[in-house]
Amino acid sequence: MSGMDEAAPQLKLLLKQLDLDRLDRDLFLGDPGGGEGRLFGGMVAAQSVMAAYMTVDEGSLHSMHAYFLRPGRHGVPIRFVVYRIRDGRTFTTRDVVAHQAGEAIFQVTTSFTKPEEGYEYQEPMPQVLPPDESPGWEWGWKPEVGEEKQAERRWMRERPLEIRNAEPDYEKREGETPRRAVWVKMRGPLPDDERIHAAAIAYASDSGFLATARHVNAPGRSASASLDHSVWFHYPPRFDDWLLFTSRSTMAHAARALIQGEMFTREGRRVVSVTQEGLVRRPRESR
Amino acid sequence: MSGMDEAAPQLKLLLKQLDLDRLDRDLFLGDPGGGEGRLFGGMVAAQSVMAAYMTVDEGSLHSMHAYFLRPGRHGVPIRFVVYRIRDGRTFTTRDVVAHQAGEAIFQVTTSFTKPEEGYEYQEPMPQVLPPDESPGWEWGWKPEVGEEKQAERRWMRERPLEIRNAEPDYEKREGETPRRAVWVKMRGPLPDDERIHAAAIAYASDSGFLATARHVNAPGRSASASLDHSVWFHYPPRFDDWLLFTSRSTMAHAARALIQGEMFTREGRRVVSVTQEGLVRRPRESR
Repeated sequence: MSGMDEAAPQLKLLLKQLDLDRLDRDLFLGDPGGGEGRLFGGMVAAQSVMAAYMTVDEGSLHSMHAYFLRPGRHGVPIRFVVYRIRDGRTFTTRDVVAHQAGEAIFQVTTSFTKPEEGYEYQEPMPQVLPPDESPGWEWGWKPEVGEEKQAERRWMRERPLEIRNAEPDYEKREGETPRRAVWVKMRGPLPDDERIHAAAIAYASDSGFLATARHVNAPGRSASASLDHSVWFHYPPRFDDWLLFTSRSTMAHAARALIQGEMFTREGRRVVSVTQEGLVRRPRESR
Repeated sequence: MSGMDEAAPQLKLLLKQLDLDRLDRDLFLGDPGGGEGRLFGGMVAAQSVMAAYMTVDEGSLHSMHAYFLRPGRHGVPIRFVVYRIRDGRTFTTRDVVAHQAGEAIFQVTTSFTKPEEGYEYQEPMPQVLPPDESPGWEWGWKPEVGEEKQAERRWMRERPLEIRNAEPDYEKREGETPRRAVWVKMRGPLPDDERIHAAAIAYASDSGFLATARHVNAPGRSASASLDHSVWFHYPPRFDDWLLFTSRSTMAHAARALIQGEMFTREGRRVVSVTQEGLVRRPRESR
């Protein structure tokens, strides 16, 4: 689409990080890379998906349910322990627990299945700008921001994921719940390996998702954290082109917000569904 | 509402079934009761919630993510093994694995938290009939049905859960995805014990949920099964009165349907969110 025939350096790094070391049949070691602040949860999710796939002979990932247990750290290797929960005729189930410095930071149950014929229907894709007409993620961001926000933006620029704002004119109205719609794409082609496509989607699915609740409600220095993360892959995972990532924070109470979203191909096929609960505390000043 | 001051026999039985035997600190035994066919998944979920709560000193259940691994059987005791994943300052996490006859049939991760102040918003409750004007669950059902359907109806009548159709005039239109709205209430008051309220909501949350996809698409003898089940409790669990249980099957492909729903109080407060993926195979005749 944008003429990138080769992976950008950021994507090459991610692909290297997804290439886990196999220490034993069901034990893997991953390098989450360096960086500032807390480790991005989508990285741990993506590496966990790789670990699970490595222990499955047949079938595609169709769902995953994760809990974030403790904040991850940059520069510290992550140990992924896979538990073989079920090897059924149709479904294969794997638990993965990610440990860092001896502590479990993340756990996920993953389920794999084989292709099958069945009913077909979906809710339609919302009307948004096509990716080529959508402004980049920096659209509408204030140029003058504090050091913390600047670090966040540097990190956004250095990411293997390209993000465009598919609904730049959206303004939350009084009484409405917040929503977002962005186009997401990896910065270059992925190898023809379903495991990597699944991992890349998992990576993208945690990207800016909690922000749907956070940006609207807590534009200041709020404390926020993903609590859980569920992804359903309705088709065998592929991430070759732009995907529209829609999200709505349909509910918030007691400092917890629920965010529900979907990913669509350009053609409007809903390929992925995502749900996350996040902790969103008010900025310190107003607490 | 309907003047029931005392629990109906079906509810008394459920309360007895929720009163698990504690064999060891983190090991419980439950009686799923007798019956025909496959064991109702909501029963295993409800007993698992009880087992998790028994190992938690403080906090309310705010989310659970479960996988159904194997069909459960009636009349066979279920062993619940609880794993203490995290005892954090704010969040407590427990895994529960339910075993029957030596095999894991169900696993769930549960997360507990303490009350906190925070942002408040929700999508509004849809317009439906109030519970007193809603017809019972048998509304619109054909009187002449086969032996299998009759067994299902006997089972419905013998349940501790009362169900009313809040949108009896709903007809799925061409191109729309299927939806349902029912009022649900336990047949009598529950003891003032949050654990039992949480378990009863978990029980109800799996009730008729997959049917939102199944009834519309596969009215015949289709093979269907719940694959996973996620519940978010946005408020400390209470199930004293009617709850409106709305559900939409927003997506189906490859014999798997995604169903997304909510529970609201009569006053329109969204207290629970539910998501389930189910296997829905075409009836044998048309396959």
